[in-house]
Amino acid sequence: MLHPSRDQIQLVEVLAALGHPVRAQIVRALASGDELFCGEVVADVPKSTLTAHWRVLREAGVICQRPEGRKLFIRLRRDDLDTRFPGLIALLLAEDF
Amino acid sequence: MLHPSRDQIQLVEVLAALGHPVRAQIVRALASGDELFCGEVVADVPKSTLTAHWRVLREAGVICQRPEGRKLFIRLRRDDLDTRFPGLIALLLAEDF
Repeated sequence: MLHPSRDQIQLVEVLAALGHPVRAQIVRALASGDELFCGEVVADVPKSTLTAHWRVLREAGVICQRPEGRKLFIRLRRDDLDTRFPGLIALLLAEDF
Repeated sequence: MLHPSRDQIQLVEVLAALGHPVRAQIVRALASGDELFCGEVVADVPKSTLTAHWRVLREAGVICQRPEGRKLFIRLRRDDLDTRFPGLIALLLAEDF
Protein backbone atom coordinates (compact mmCIF):
# COMPACT_ATOMS: atom_id res chain seq x y z
CA MET A 1 0.00 0.00 0.00
CA LEU A 2 1.80 3.06 -1.33
CA HIS A 3 2.10 6.09 0.94
CA PRO A 4 4.39 8.79 -0.43
CA SER A 5 6.78 10.29 2.09
CA ARG A 6 6.20 13.91 3.10
CA ASP A 7 8.85 15.12 0.66
CA GLN A 8 7.39 13.12 -2.21
CA ILE A 9 3.98 14.74 -1.97
CA GLN A 10 3.26 16.78 -5.11
CA LEU A 11 0.98 19.82 -4.92
CA VAL A 12 -0.69 19.19 -8.28
CA GLU A 13 -1.60 15.65 -7.21
CA VAL A 14 -2.97 16.91 -3.90
CA LEU A 15 -5.08 19.53 -5.70
CA ALA A 16 -6.42 16.88 -8.08
CA ALA A 17 -7.19 14.60 -5.14
CA LEU A 18 -9.02 17.36 -3.24
CA GLY A 19 -10.85 18.58 -6.35
CA HIS A 20 -13.76 16.17 -6.17
CA PRO A 21 -16.90 16.64 -4.05
CA VAL A 22 -16.76 13.21 -2.38
CA ARG A 23 -13.04 13.45 -1.64
CA ALA A 24 -13.46 16.97 -0.25
CA GLN A 25 -16.22 15.59 1.97
CA ILE A 26 -13.90 12.79 3.15
CA VAL A 27 -11.21 15.31 4.09
CA ARG A 28 -13.74 17.37 6.04
CA ALA A 29 -14.93 14.24 7.84
CA LEU A 30 -11.32 13.48 8.84
CA ALA A 31 -10.51 17.05 9.86
CA SER A 32 -10.49 16.31 13.58
CA GLY A 33 -7.34 14.28 13.01
CA ASP A 34 -8.82 11.16 14.55
CA GLU A 35 -8.44 7.88 12.79
CA LEU A 36 -11.77 6.59 11.47
CA PHE A 37 -12.83 3.15 10.33
CA CYS A 38 -13.34 3.48 6.57
CA GLY A 39 -17.01 2.56 6.92
CA GLU A 40 -17.59 5.54 9.23
CA VAL A 41 -16.22 8.33 7.08
CA VAL A 42 -18.99 9.07 4.58
CA ALA A 43 -22.44 7.66 4.06
CA ASP A 44 -24.33 7.02 0.85
CA VAL A 45 -21.32 6.30 -1.34
CA PRO A 46 -20.96 2.79 -2.82
CA LYS A 47 -18.03 0.84 -1.41
CA SER A 48 -16.38 0.33 -4.80
CA THR A 49 -16.50 4.07 -5.46
CA LEU A 50 -15.05 4.78 -2.04
CA THR A 51 -12.21 2.32 -2.64
CA ALA A 52 -11.21 4.32 -5.72
CA HIS A 53 -11.35 7.58 -3.73
CA TRP A 54 -9.20 6.13 -0.90
CA ARG A 55 -6.61 5.19 -3.46
CA VAL A 56 -6.49 8.65 -5.07
CA LEU A 57 -6.24 10.31 -1.66
CA ARG A 58 -3.63 7.86 -0.38
CA GLU A 59 -1.39 7.97 -3.45
CA ALA A 60 -1.50 11.78 -3.44
CA GLY A 61 -0.40 11.80 0.21
CA VAL A 62 -3.64 13.20 1.62
CA ILE A 63 -4.58 10.22 3.83
CA CYS A 64 -2.96 7.25 5.53
CA GLN A 65 -4.67 3.88 5.44
CA ARG A 66 -3.87 1.32 8.11
CA PRO A 67 -5.24 -2.22 8.05
CA GLU A 68 -6.13 -3.73 11.42
CA GLY A 69 -7.61 -7.19 11.32
CA ARG A 70 -10.27 -7.04 8.64
CA LYS A 71 -10.81 -3.32 9.04
CA LEU A 72 -9.10 -0.41 7.34
CA PHE A 73 -8.48 2.76 9.30
CA ILE A 74 -8.12 6.17 7.66
CA ARG A 75 -6.38 9.31 8.89
CA LEU A 76 -5.82 12.71 7.29
CA ARG A 77 -2.09 13.52 6.91
CA ARG A 78 -2.74 16.99 8.28
CA ASP A 79 0.77 17.59 9.65
CA ASP A 80 2.43 16.60 6.38
CA LEU A 81 0.05 18.70 4.31
CA ASP A 82 0.24 21.73 6.60
CA THR A 83 4.03 21.55 6.52
CA ARG A 84 4.27 21.25 2.76
CA PHE A 85 1.33 23.46 1.74
CA PRO A 86 0.42 25.79 4.60
CA GLY A 87 -3.18 26.89 4.60
CA LEU A 88 -4.43 24.52 1.92
CA ILE A 89 -6.43 22.17 4.14
CA ALA A 90 -7.66 25.13 6.18
CA LEU A 91 -9.16 26.60 2.99
CA LEU A 92 -11.03 23.39 2.32
CA LEU A 93 -12.35 23.23 5.88
CA ALA A 94 -13.44 26.87 5.82
CA GLU A 95 -15.52 26.46 2.68
CA ASP A 96 -19.24 25.80 3.01
CA PHE A 97 -20.62 22.84 1.16
CA MET B 1 -18.63 32.20 -22.92
CA LEU B 2 -19.38 31.36 -19.28
CA HIS B 3 -17.40 33.18 -16.60
CA PRO B 4 -18.72 32.59 -13.08
CA SER B 5 -18.96 35.67 -10.91
CA ARG B 6 -16.57 35.92 -7.96
CA ASP B 7 -19.22 34.66 -5.56
CA GLN B 8 -20.09 31.71 -7.77
CA ILE B 9 -16.57 30.31 -7.78
CA GLN B 10 -16.47 26.93 -6.01
CA LEU B 11 -13.29 25.81 -4.26
CA VAL B 12 -13.63 22.16 -5.27
CA GLU B 13 -13.90 23.17 -8.92
CA VAL B 14 -10.89 25.45 -8.63
CA LEU B 15 -8.87 22.63 -7.02
CA ALA B 16 -9.87 20.26 -9.80
CA ALA B 17 -8.95 22.86 -12.41
CA LEU B 18 -5.52 23.50 -10.83
CA GLY B 19 -4.86 19.80 -10.25
CA HIS B 20 -3.45 19.05 -13.70
CA PRO B 21 0.17 19.61 -14.76
CA VAL B 22 -0.65 21.58 -17.92
CA ARG B 23 -3.24 23.75 -16.18
CA ALA B 24 -0.86 24.41 -13.29
CA GLN B 25 1.74 25.44 -15.86
CA ILE B 26 -0.78 27.79 -17.49
CA VAL B 27 -1.53 29.47 -14.16
CA ARG B 28 2.18 29.93 -13.50
CA ALA B 29 2.63 31.45 -16.97
CA LEU B 30 -0.18 33.92 -16.20
CA ALA B 31 1.07 34.75 -12.71
CA SER B 32 2.32 38.21 -13.65
CA GLY B 33 -1.31 39.24 -14.08
CA ASP B 34 -0.75 40.39 -17.65
CA GLU B 35 -3.15 39.33 -20.33
CA LEU B 36 -1.56 36.94 -22.80
CA PHE B 37 -2.61 35.87 -26.26
CA CYS B 38 -3.64 32.24 -25.90
CA GLY B 39 -0.92 31.13 -28.31
CA GLU B 40 1.76 32.63 -26.05
CA VAL B 41 0.91 30.92 -22.78
CA VAL B 42 2.39 27.43 -23.09
CA ALA B 43 4.38 25.71 -25.80
CA ASP B 44 4.28 22.10 -26.94
CA VAL B 45 0.63 21.46 -26.15
CA PRO B 46 -1.73 20.68 -29.07
CA LYS B 47 -4.30 23.39 -29.70
CA SER B 48 -7.30 21.06 -29.20
CA THR B 49 -5.93 19.97 -25.82
CA LEU B 50 -5.36 23.58 -24.82
CA THR B 51 -8.91 24.51 -25.80
CA ALA B 52 -10.20 21.91 -23.35
CA HIS B 53 -7.91 23.26 -20.62
CA TRP B 54 -9.04 26.88 -21.21
CA ARG B 55 -12.60 25.75 -20.78
CA VAL B 56 -11.95 23.93 -17.48
CA LEU B 57 -10.03 26.91 -16.14
CA ARG B 58 -12.60 29.44 -17.34
CA GLU B 59 -15.65 27.58 -16.06
CA ALA B 60 -13.99 27.08 -12.67
CA GLY B 61 -13.34 30.83 -12.46
CA VAL B 62 -9.54 30.60 -12.67
CA ILE B 63 -9.09 32.57 -15.91
CA CYS B 64 -10.91 35.12 -18.04
CA GLN B 65 -10.96 34.71 -21.79
CA ARG B 66 -11.54 37.78 -23.96
CA PRO B 67 -11.91 37.56 -27.72
CA GLU B 68 -10.42 40.42 -29.72
CA GLY B 69 -10.71 40.12 -33.47
CA ARG B 70 -9.58 36.61 -34.25
CA LYS B 71 -7.44 36.30 -31.14
CA LEU B 72 -8.34 35.13 -27.68
CA PHE B 73 -6.70 36.77 -24.70
CA ILE B 74 -6.30 35.04 -21.36
CA ARG B 75 -5.87 36.50 -17.88
CA LEU B 76 -5.60 34.89 -14.44
CA ARG B 77 -8.43 35.99 -12.10
CA ARG B 78 -5.91 36.56 -9.35
CA ASP B 79 -7.91 39.17 -7.42
CA ASP B 80 -11.02 37.02 -7.39
CA LEU B 81 -9.11 33.90 -6.34
CA ASP B 82 -7.05 35.70 -3.70
CA THR B 83 -10.22 37.21 -2.24
CA ARG B 84 -12.13 33.94 -2.14
CA PHE B 85 -9.25 31.54 -1.32
CA PRO B 86 -6.36 33.48 0.21
CA GLY B 87 -3.00 31.85 -0.34
CA LEU B 88 -4.11 29.19 -2.82
CA ILE B 89 -2.52 30.66 -5.95
CA ALA B 90 0.55 31.65 -3.95
CA LEU B 91 1.03 27.98 -3.01
CA LEU B 92 0.93 26.97 -6.64
CA LEU B 93 3.43 29.66 -7.62
CA ALA B 94 5.78 28.74 -4.78
CA GLU B 95 5.95 25.09 -5.78
CA ASP B 96 8.80 23.91 -7.96
CA PHE B 97 7.95 21.98 -11.04
